[in-house]
Amino acid sequence: MSDDKQGLPHSVRSGNEKRTRGGRSQRQKQRQHQRARPDVARAPYIRRQITTYDILNEEGLCLIEANADQILKEIGMDFTDDTEILDLFREAGADVQGTRVRFEPGHPRQIIQATAPSEYIQHARNPKNNVVIGGNNTVLCPSFGPPFIHNLDEGRRYGTLADFHNLVKIHQTIPWLHHSGGVVCEPTDIPVNKRHLDMLLGHFRYSDRGCFGSLIGRERAEDSVAMAKILFGDEFVDQNCVFYSVANTNAPLVLDSAMSGALKTYAKNNQAVACTPWTLAGAMSPCTVAGTLAQVLAEALAVCALTQLVRPGAPCLMGSFATAISMQSGAPTFGNPEGAKMVLAAGQLARRLGVPFHTVGALSASKLPDGQAQQEATYGLLMSVLAGANFINHATGWLEGGLVTGYEKTMMDADLCGKIVDFAQGIDLSSEAQAMDAIFEVGPGSHFLSSRHTLNHFETAFYRSNIADNNSWEQWSANGGLDSAQRANQLWKEHLASYEEPTLDVARLEELEEFVLKRKSSMPDMNY
Amino acid sequence: MSDDKQGLPHSVRSGNEKRTRGGRSQRQKQRQHQRARPDVARAPYIRRQITTYDILNEEGLCLIEANADQILKEIGMDFTDDTEILDLFREAGADVQGTRVRFEPGHPRQIIQATAPSEYIQHARNPKNNVVIGGNNTVLCPSFGPPFIHNLDEGRRYGTLADFHNLVKIHQTIPWLHHSGGVVCEPTDIPVNKRHLDMLLGHFRYSDRGCFGSLIGRERAEDSVAMAKILFGDEFVDQNCVFYSVANTNAPLVLDSAMSGALKTYAKNNQAVACTPWTLAGAMSPCTVAGTLAQVLAEALAVCALTQLVRPGAPCLMGSFATAISMQSGAPTFGNPEGAKMVLAAGQLARRLGVPFHTVGALSASKLPDGQAQQEATYGLLMSVLAGANFINHATGWLEGGLVTGYEKTMMDADLCGKIVDFAQGIDLSSEAQAMDAIFEVGPGSHFLSSRHTLNHFETAFYRSNIADNNSWEQWSANGGLDSAQRANQLWKEHLASYEEPTLDVARLEELEEFVLKRKSSMPDMNY
Repeated sequence: MSDDKQGLPHSVRSGNEKRTRGGRSQRQKQRQHQRARPDVARAPYIRRQITTYDILNEEGLCLIEANADQILKEIGMDFTDDTEILDLFREAGADVQGTRVRFEPGHPRQIIQATAPSEYIQHARNPKNNVVIGGNNTVLCPSFGPPFIHNLDEGRRYGTLADFHNLVKIHQTIPWLHHSGGVVCEPTDIPVNKRHLDMLLGHFRYSDRGCFGSLIGRERAEDSVAMAKILFGDEFVDQNCVFYSVANTNAPLVLDSAMSGALKTYAKNNQAVACTPWTLAGAMSPCTVAGTLAQVLAEALAVCALTQLVRPGAPCLMGSFATAISMQSGAPTFGNPEGAKMVLAAGQLARRLGVPFHTVGALSASKLPDGQAQQEATYGLLMSVLAGANFINHATGWLEGGLVTGYEKTMMDADLCGKIVDFAQGIDLSSEAQAMDAIFEVGPGSHFLSSRHTLNHFETAFYRSNIADNNSWEQWSANGGLDSAQRANQLWKEHLASYEEPTLDVARLEELEEFVLKRKSSMPDMNY
Repeated sequence: MSDDKQGLPHSVRSGNEKRTRGGRSQRQKQRQHQRARPDVARAPYIRRQITTYDILNEEGLCLIEANADQILKEIGMDFTDDTEILDLFREAGADVQGTRVRFEPGHPRQIIQATAPSEYIQHARNPKNNVVIGGNNTVLCPSFGPPFIHNLDEGRRYGTLADFHNLVKIHQTIPWLHHSGGVVCEPTDIPVNKRHLDMLLGHFRYSDRGCFGSLIGRERAEDSVAMAKILFGDEFVDQNCVFYSVANTNAPLVLDSAMSGALKTYAKNNQAVACTPWTLAGAMSPCTVAGTLAQVLAEALAVCALTQLVRPGAPCLMGSFATAISMQSGAPTFGNPEGAKMVLAAGQLARRLGVPFHTVGALSASKLPDGQAQQEATYGLLMSVLAGANFINHATGWLEGGLVTGYEKTMMDADLCGKIVDFAQGIDLSSEAQAMDAIFEVGPGSHFLSSRHTLNHFETAFYRSNIADNNSWEQWSANGGLDSAQRANQLWKEHLASYEEPTLDVARLEELEEFVLKRKSSMPDMNY
């Protein structure tokens, strides 16, 4: 259905020429919004011009790799409730006993390096939003998974499909995000077994960026692929990546069938799987960074290898979501030095493996969009960027250890994403940026405010936050004396009001809606 | 007066054996406080085990250095109202015309590298708190300079000497700070021309860490040195560094006599001077990172060279305090990507120069200890640490662009300092930290909570925040549903209540008090 592998899927090529649904009434407001932010130079993803931060030296990296190899050889990993996986590993030469799979040192790495791409394109329905995942690129993706939402107007409550749609729309308006994500919040007013259909329809309709397929179980993954084929065409989906997905291990050293079922479906269909040990050090891995890293690498190696056995060449990422628990309460903690060390080292390990690196971003255990939330989020997201992450899940919105997507937190984190987009461009060393003429023009004891150089560049010179208040105390007081969460409350409403539904071919949308209705009516409502 | 250059000053050696003033009533509470925080492994300064983050490559660094050389050769720098400085530069071979001093390329660098130490010790009155400044070491220092204070009980108001004392005491209880600082807030209830005397007395009495001497003008610097000689002894002060000081340029390319007067006094007395261009890019330097860096390096080179002409071998630091203004309002902004790039590159430039690097930390323009404050502070402080800064001023407490020291912000930033102390230790790769025994003991599908390894290490395994709330929403709600600023409000009061005055020889204290009284009565009250 498409002319070439990286070409436009058919629904997109024709989209602009057909009548569309979706509000245009806000167009005027949108334009004003954009005029007010001349800094919004939107790129589909970050092309990092800065180096990574390497926390381990060669000796340390070899040590972690040797320990991971030893874990996989002597302990092995359990793949439960799925004989197909066990057969695949057995055929590849692994030692399979019951559900336990053991590998000779270097074997999973060899399998992965033989066929896994070092970078790949995830296609969006708007090709301008295609993202290159791998190399020096970074994709920022919003919050994933929370059953609750929080905002200053309503406090904390269960998320609904309306919230889900709101969040997809808000994310679509944020220039610093590159992906529509997946479960931006759980639509808890929809039966559990049917949510994935409504969620995917929501992404396809309200965003023109790439998104996740459903992560839990073979059946929902197959629904996701079927919907993608309606949107992109059968052949396009088979030959191109249009979904992102994550397979989390049950650390330590288990992959269950809820995850492996989806993993197999996506890999068979050439869709990306981020193979991601989800680890709370002290509970699901040792209470040390070095011990956790060896276990994370062991699990990621085994699961990445599985993707390549299912379909050689299918995109896979090495993932790491590792943080520490509070040793006093057992509660997960975020934005901590252990998490920083682990993400930096995991990024190095992924680069040595040669596959893209997936990790997490602006995490926090805070219940509110307060100082704790931003200290933890900022520490975490900055470290993930310095780790050279190619895909950062939860770059915005996460509160309460992932139980809550915060509307205000989303806007506050989005500002941080904007800072990161700018930071990742590194230092401009062009003649104009050296500004020697300006320094000569101004000379000692004067100022640059009215220099020719400043006048030429003032509109784009610096990153411009839309949420920070840099005014004097007097001006700030006159403006109501709001804290940053209160300003974020105004801001998400402005973004939502300025949202404009991206063009989508009506026939395609109706076909998707029909599929969802048919699938939903074929199943009883179930809440597990 | 002291047995050797790095030995104990006399007032300290004898302190513990004499009767002391200062409350001991809080000792029981202090012990409880410390028992509740077994993670408080206090070190006098950070010995970084991690590498620096290098944002510029060799080519970029050479370009900035060449531009700085060109600025100093062709434009030069003005040293106003001080003929002694002009004579020093003339004698050293610089081209002096009026107040303008120009240098041949490489000349200031040559002067500096001939005699300036690459690292040195700042002695504290308690030798356990001596800090090594330079190399892989980092010293974290509290807020400097704000005329206002802010706390949740009183809001924002002018600071008083009581606030100054409170803050010194609170800082003394924070294990992650390494220095008592200088103007932790302005004691505005004291005449401007007498404040330095009360402030220095406050540091000497209520803290046993190192501190700043007064930065403004020759006379106050001489008072500071005189007081240090009472505390440490004349010879000890002449032979050892007991003060930190900062000389800020009037960017672009001016050093005035308020700063140079203090600089000369400290350098003559072998005390440290951080030669620090204070630059708001777009106003005081070009609106680009590369242009600002060249100007910053040019100014720092000229001022560092001056310290070595005043007294060869006196400790000097290359400083940088560079951030961007809002191009819409002209207001300074903080925690921005421009500041991050500039501090990282400035750190590289300082290392190539071969002197310690001074910069700033947890800055924010926010009026409140909110999300903006912590996003900006966290971004800034992390970047300064990754820049390899040897001394980080304003590591805690700054609000409102430096107009305010926040009591709550101090505690929130202190938590970040704790995270940084831990992070800077890097990854422990010892056999015990590799935890392979634990991974083998636990095996797939179980958990590490009750493993032998976890039980052996749970008390010290992870950094333990005393301010983050990691509890469930239900527990947090039951505890009052406080945000992090509200918890910080409780925390600084606990710290203040647990404060215990460090032992100080009474005779020495009385001599200091007498000096202050005498000096204050010798001057009329002046408020400039």
